[in-house]
Order: sequence, then structure tokens, then C-alpha cells
Amino acid sequence: MTETPAGTATTTTSGSDLHLELPTTGGRRAALMAALREAIRSGRLAPGTRLPPYRTLAADLGIARNTAADAYAELVAEGWLTARQGSGTTVADRAAPVAPTRARRAAPPRRPAHDLRQGQPDASSFPRVGWLAAGRRALTAAPSEAFGPGDPQGRRELRAVLADYLARARGVRTDPERIVICSGFAHALRLLFDGASAVLPARDSGPLAVEAYGLAFHRGLLARAGVTTVPLPLDEDGAQVGRLSGHPDVRTALLTPAHQFPTGGPLHAARRAAVIDWARGNGGLVLEDDYDGEFRYDRQPIGAVQGLDPERVVYLGTVSKSLSPALRIGWMVLPDDLVDRVLAAKGEREGWSSALDQLTLAEFIDSGGYDKHVRRMRRRYRERRDHLVEALAARAPHIEVSGIAAGLHAVLRLAPGTERSVLKAAAYRGLAVDGLADYRHPQTGPDAMPPTDGLVVGYATPPDHAYQAAVTALCDILPPSA
Amino acid sequence: MTETPAGTATTTTSGSDLHLELPTTGGRRAALMAALREAIRSGRLAPGTRLPPYRTLAADLGIARNTAADAYAELVAEGWLTARQGSGTTVADRAAPVAPTRARRAAPPRRPAHDLRQGQPDASSFPRVGWLAAGRRALTAAPSEAFGPGDPQGRRELRAVLADYLARARGVRTDPERIVICSGFAHALRLLFDGASAVLPARDSGPLAVEAYGLAFHRGLLARAGVTTVPLPLDEDGAQVGRLSGHPDVRTALLTPAHQFPTGGPLHAARRAAVIDWARGNGGLVLEDDYDGEFRYDRQPIGAVQGLDPERVVYLGTVSKSLSPALRIGWMVLPDDLVDRVLAAKGEREGWSSALDQLTLAEFIDSGGYDKHVRRMRRRYRERRDHLVEALAARAPHIEVSGIAAGLHAVLRLAPGTERSVLKAAAYRGLAVDGLADYRHPQTGPDAMPPTDGLVVGYATPPDHAYQAAVTALCDILPPSA
Repeated sequence: MTETPAGTATTTTSGSDLHLELPTTGGRRAALMAALREAIRSGRLAPGTRLPPYRTLAADLGIARNTAADAYAELVAEGWLTARQGSGTTVADRAAPVAPTRARRAAPPRRPAHDLRQGQPDASSFPRVGWLAAGRRALTAAPSEAFGPGDPQGRRELRAVLADYLARARGVRTDPERIVICSGFAHALRLLFDGASAVLPARDSGPLAVEAYGLAFHRGLLARAGVTTVPLPLDEDGAQVGRLSGHPDVRTALLTPAHQFPTGGPLHAARRAAVIDWARGNGGLVLEDDYDGEFRYDRQPIGAVQGLDPERVVYLGTVSKSLSPALRIGWMVLPDDLVDRVLAAKGEREGWSSALDQLTLAEFIDSGGYDKHVRRMRRRYRERRDHLVEALAARAPHIEVSGIAAGLHAVLRLAPGTERSVLKAAAYRGLAVDGLADYRHPQTGPDAMPPTDGLVVGYATPPDHAYQAAVTALCDILPPSA
Repeated sequence: MTETPAGTATTTTSGSDLHLELPTTGGRRAALMAALREAIRSGRLAPGTRLPPYRTLAADLGIARNTAADAYAELVAEGWLTARQGSGTTVADRAAPVAPTRARRAAPPRRPAHDLRQGQPDASSFPRVGWLAAGRRALTAAPSEAFGPGDPQGRRELRAVLADYLARARGVRTDPERIVICSGFAHALRLLFDGASAVLPARDSGPLAVEAYGLAFHRGLLARAGVTTVPLPLDEDGAQVGRLSGHPDVRTALLTPAHQFPTGGPLHAARRAAVIDWARGNGGLVLEDDYDGEFRYDRQPIGAVQGLDPERVVYLGTVSKSLSPALRIGWMVLPDDLVDRVLAAKGEREGWSSALDQLTLAEFIDSGGYDKHVRRMRRRYRERRDHLVEALAARAPHIEVSGIAAGLHAVLRLAPGTERSVLKAAAYRGLAVDGLADYRHPQTGPDAMPPTDGLVVGYATPPDHAYQAAVTALCDILPPSA
């Protein structure tokens, strides 16, 4: 056995571990006093912390009891410690710690008075009670191996439940073996495109077709991974997938068929069929970003394009819109031949979702809690959307709301050239909202959807009590009819 | 508003969503029957699933009630559906689904009869009750924003609790602003070294010094990121950090100071000081992998090297050994000037840990549950280690157990040249255990720790009831004294 290095010794308080270092030479009493002073000075022992009885400390450190008792008594005399009959020895209140280090972080950005930025569900609506109950059932019933290192593909329980759920609710055709759990859409993009073990490395796969409007964050992630993107123009039937034939080097297309993001239309049925035909005829692959497919208010949701050909589509979904982005759980439904490659890219442990949350989500879906929550939120968001449309009709009837009644955001058309001034007015009013320009692919040509200005309004973001005021603020800053 | 594309229609069962597609032309009854048959055939509607009442279905699809009722009746006649008085219409049992796709995954590896592989805690010891109680308290008390998109640095609640805990238990000097939550050690390595936004990209940082023995998985991750590694030989005082002066291009050293992995010795106090001196004198950085620092059985744990100079050490820890790898929660304690760079590398959402688990862990630590669990596991693992040492003393007294009484694994020295045959005997016996050769850096020179053969025995892995049998199996396959 190797010896412990000299110069270190430690102790344990009755309830918790406390690390102390004593020098190996010199008097024990002075050394213990110095170590305790340092622990207090550095803040490791906060004011009010109760120290172990001196007998315990002495035993732990291998020093005489008298020595420890003397050290305590002297530190009480010096004002570092306080001794009270019956409550033991504690760190004195006046011994305020000097933080040994202090990082100078930028102050967090001030929260806006009104927040209508898109991208997140109403955080105050998280179903805490139902989630906790599902967690209790799931963790109580879980086999021991659930707390072990786990499966890179994700918990079998969750994949089985998802296969049923996605078939039923989204028309996805899969079995649990084709599903890989990931931590969100960005994680899925990284597995597909980024890094040494990417499934579709840029050097082999050529450029990626994307919609002319989309999330700048996704474009940035792809650009950093070395992937060139080719924008597909949009019109009232969605992405012009016929343009794919003009790009023979493109083998992969990333689309939001159920609800174009952010402009809001669905991909027309003929184009859904056409993009599958393109993929079949060109060895191509469609990446289907079904980011809010569960939220459609005018009628029931359109099924996934994946259902048309599971071998030609990677279907991507998450709970980030339906439940919470805080969970970091998403899923990839993959063609058979990509499963092993995605698992290889996923690697050992890194980027895995919490197995406990996976089990809880499986139970939450299986018990009907998820459907119930989605229906509840669908009603709530529909009411918010209706309120927005009504408020605009009353106060700014010249402003058009484009897109279908679906999702967690709406696009408001603005007169050409007015977007920037409207955003300035919003900022001045304390209203956080995005302009459409940020979503536009920089290489979008003039033949794309008319480059009108617009606002992307996330009506799901505020809590209920703050929503009406946010809509009022929005109406206040909209330009009057020209 | 954009129109919904033709050719799609859907319905909802009373309790859950069901997606159906009807063609736009032709008879409604035949179309509905075809859609239901397809849903059953493909497995989307499993046997036993209850269909919505025909009135509801008719309303959802916008067809006549009679049409829906007729379709149901015909499918009952055909044997696809079953109608029972009082329990509605369900999918018939005999209508077993034909899976539309079937991924041919490799069969999961057969579980060994005995598992003494290192790397994981006893999964059967996860403190389910305490964790669930902490989760209930944490989620009930959490502010709404906890369910929103969150903070790339990790929950403030967890960072505050960790700053206290790590100071108290591991002698780490930090404040919450210098801590970044990550999903595990591999995630931390990737943030530091891999990808376009790496904090210490190989091209700028030069080669990385590592210990001559370590995890092949980490070496592989670094190699894929383009990082060259230089092995530091080991001796009875740990890594020979004095060798760093012979590599002027090395600026970063990855060490396991508390308990060299896997050989098991601590880094000598003089070398702890020396590596900090090296870092100060050469603009260097020490990466401290404190993978099991809480588990020391002969005396209290040695404090972290980080405490010697927080500006020169990146301290890395996780709950993977102390609690469970299934949680995917770890932490980086960073020098002030690296915090913003690590946050930039962490990016937007990708690789974040579950905020719910973070809050639960903060509450679990803060309420004393974590200390209690660590103490309980320390006792249990110590008993296991003692049992191993006693069994070896009785049955194979010529086999030396190297390293200090700490951690979740032990190294058994074998006679030179015997490791491979011992591993073969273990495999034949159904005993999963690792040989030391896999841990050896391929460029380790002959002047390193004598290249003896050995076994790395993970005594924490099996559940309690299986441990004695595993140790017996181990003793059975050890070679007799030469």
C-alpha cells in the first residue's frame, strides 16, 4: 500500500465532511488554529457553522484532546469562534469570510417589462404535480440498472412509449429500435453534422438545403460545423422543394413541414410528396424539424412527412415546446441504416439526457398526463392567439397576421422598411420581440417570399397574468396605417 | 391565413390524439375504413386500443355520423375491431400489427455472470426515497423560470450549494460564479478541447501531459479532437510531474491527484506543490480529475490541488461515482479567466443537464442527504474492499493489492506476462474484469512504473447480494503462486 503524503490531515463534522490541512512540522495547536483561521477567512467555514466537538476533531486529526480544546478556546478568545453552553462551538458572526476569488461576470441582462420573444412555452404552466407523481411512480418501479451507466440510445421504456405516441399523435411510423433519445434539436444537429464522428460530415454530404427563413442559431451551428446551406425560397405553399432539382450537389434538406418556422404555413401536400420523391430519386434525406407539431388550433395537426417514407426522413422532436426546455429531452426517429451511425456519434455518455427524467417522461406520457397537458396548453395558447388577433383587429386592423392558427408564435407583417423603427419603438417601450430580418437566410434571393418586414411574436412566453399587458404594449408600438 | 393542404384529416380519441389521413376524393366510408385498417396494420393502433365514439370521430373528421357508424360496423364484421356493450369499440386482439420497419440492432451483449468492471457505483444503492423527497421539495419551491430555457452556467441554486460543499469536503476554493455545470467528465473534456469553440484548441495549446495510466476512452476522445498526449511516468509518489520541465511545449497537465486512476496512489504533497509551481512558472494549467475524491477509507480524503491555486487549476467532479452516472451532472471549477470561454464553448442549450435534476441535487446536498449517502456508501465500499483484501489474503496471498484504501476499485498485481491468460480464464468463468494493459498509454517508456501485469477490480459494481460470489470467482481464476 502506498503511504498517504505527509502534510495533509482532515476531519469530519458530525453531519458533514470538513477538510483541514495541517503542516507536518511545528506545534499542533498553532497548526490547527492556523488551519481553522484559514478556513474561516476563505469562507469555507461560514459564520454560524457548527464545529465538531473537540474530542471528535482530535480523534480525526490524530492529535491530543487537550490540544484541540486549547485551540478552540484561543480562537474563541480571538473572536473567530463562539462557544455557547449547550450549542457547541460555532464560527463567530463577525468572522465574515473574505471571498478568496471573485469572478467578474457581466451583470445578467435586465428582464424586459414585456417579453414576446418566441421559442419557449409558458414556464409557469409546467405541470409540477403531475410530473412529480409520474417521477415517484417511475423511480419507485425502475430496475436498479436504471441508475447505472445506461444505454446510449436512451431508456427503452421511453423509446417504446414514444413509438406509440408519435404514431398516434403525429403519424410517425417507427419502432423503438429506430428512436435515439437526444438532449434537444441542437444536439441532434451536432450528432448529424458536427465533429469528427458526424453522421453526415460536410465533406461527404455536400451542402444542406434549408428554408429561406429559419433560426439564426441553427445556421450558425451548421456554419461552425463547416456545412454550407442553400436557402429554399418560400411561398404560400411552404418551401419550394422543386428548387432542389437545381442543386444536384444537395443530398439533404432540413424542413419544418408542419408549420414553417417562423413564417407559419404548412408544407402543401403535393410538396410533401414531392420532397419524398426527390429523396428517393437522388439518394437524398429529409430532416423533419417537428418543433411544435402538437399545437394546431384550427383543426387537428398534420401528420409527419416521415410517415410517407421512414427510410428517407430523419424526424426530430423535443419536449422543449410542449413541456419545458429545462428537461433537455428530444428524439430522433431514424432510417434503419442511420441508427448505428448516430449512436457512434453520440459516443460514451457525453450529451446523454438524465435517465431519471427519461423514465419520468415515459411514465408521464404512458399515464396520459402528457396528452392532458398538451390539450390544456393547446386551449391556453389558442386563447392567447385569439386575443392577439382580436386586439390587432381592434387597434391595428391594417396589420396582417400570417400563417396558420398553430404553434407558439405568430408573424405580423409590417410595411416594407418599417421593421427596424418598430423594433426600436418596442425596445423603448420595454417590449422584447424579434424582427423577421434575423430569421432570413443571408443568401436568400429576391425571388423568395416577398421580403416584407415583420415581427415574430411569441405569445406563449409570458405567464398568464402578464400576457394582456404585453399585447397592449405591442399594439401601442405598431405603426399606424400608412 | 394559409389554407391547410388537402388530403389530410385527423381525429382525437377522448383521452389522446389519433392521427388519420383520409384521401380527399372517393367515398368517405371506404376512406375511413382504409385509414383505420392502415393504422391497425402498421401498428399505430395496437390491439386493445379503444377508439373514440363514432359521433366524436364523425365530428372531428367532418363526416356524417352514419358514415362513421357504418365504417365501425363493417370493420367489426371484418374482424379488425371488437364492439362490446358498455366498453365501446376497441382494436381486435387478432389484428396484430405488422411492424412497418424493423431495425436489425445487434443483440445486446449478454450480461456476465459476475461483473467486477470498474467505473460505476452500485446502481442498486441509489437513494430513491431521499432523491424523490428532495425532488418534491425542490420542484415545489422552484420559481417559474426554472422551467424556462435556463442559464448555460447551470442553476444558481446548485452552484451555490456546490461552492460550499466542495470547500468543506474537498478543500476547493471557489465561489458560485466560477462553477459551470456540465453533463459529466467527458463533456468537460469536450468543452475544453473539442470542436470549433474549444477553450484550449490543440493548435494553440500544444500537447497535453497525461498520466501514463488512464482511461483509454479519455485518450480516444482527446485524439479525435486532435490533441496529442504526452505520458508522465508514475512511481510510488504518483505522476512524475518533474518530467514536465522536459516538455517545454506542454502547457496543460491532466492529473488524478487524490487517487491516481487506475493505479491507486495519491500524488505526494511535494509533487502537488511542484505541479502548481510549474503552472505558475510556465503559464500552465492543471486539470484536476477528482473522480472519486470522496471515497477514502483509511483516513479522511486529501484536499483538492485546486485549493493551492484556483487560478492555475481546472477542478472537475461529477456525481457519477458518488450518486449515479444516470443523472449526467458534473461541474467545472474554473480560473476566473476561463469561465466566459467555457460558457461560449457550451453554447446554446446543447449538452445542458436537466434543470430539474440540478435543482433536486442542490436540495439533496443542502438538506444533508448527499453527505449521508456518501458516508453510507463509504462504509459499504470499505467493507467490500476489506472483503476483497481478506479473500485474497486467504486464497491468493501472493497477489498484491496496490494503491491506497480508497475509491471504487483496486489494482491486483500479476506476475509479468500472465495478464492475458488470467483475463481469458476470467472470461471463461463468466467474470467481467479489466486488465491493466488497456489503461497504459501507448507511448509510455520503459522507465515508467514497472510494466507489471495487473487486474483493475471494480468492487462497487455488483449489487450486495452478488458481490461475494464475484470475489470467489475472481479468486478462482487467479494464478497460483509461481
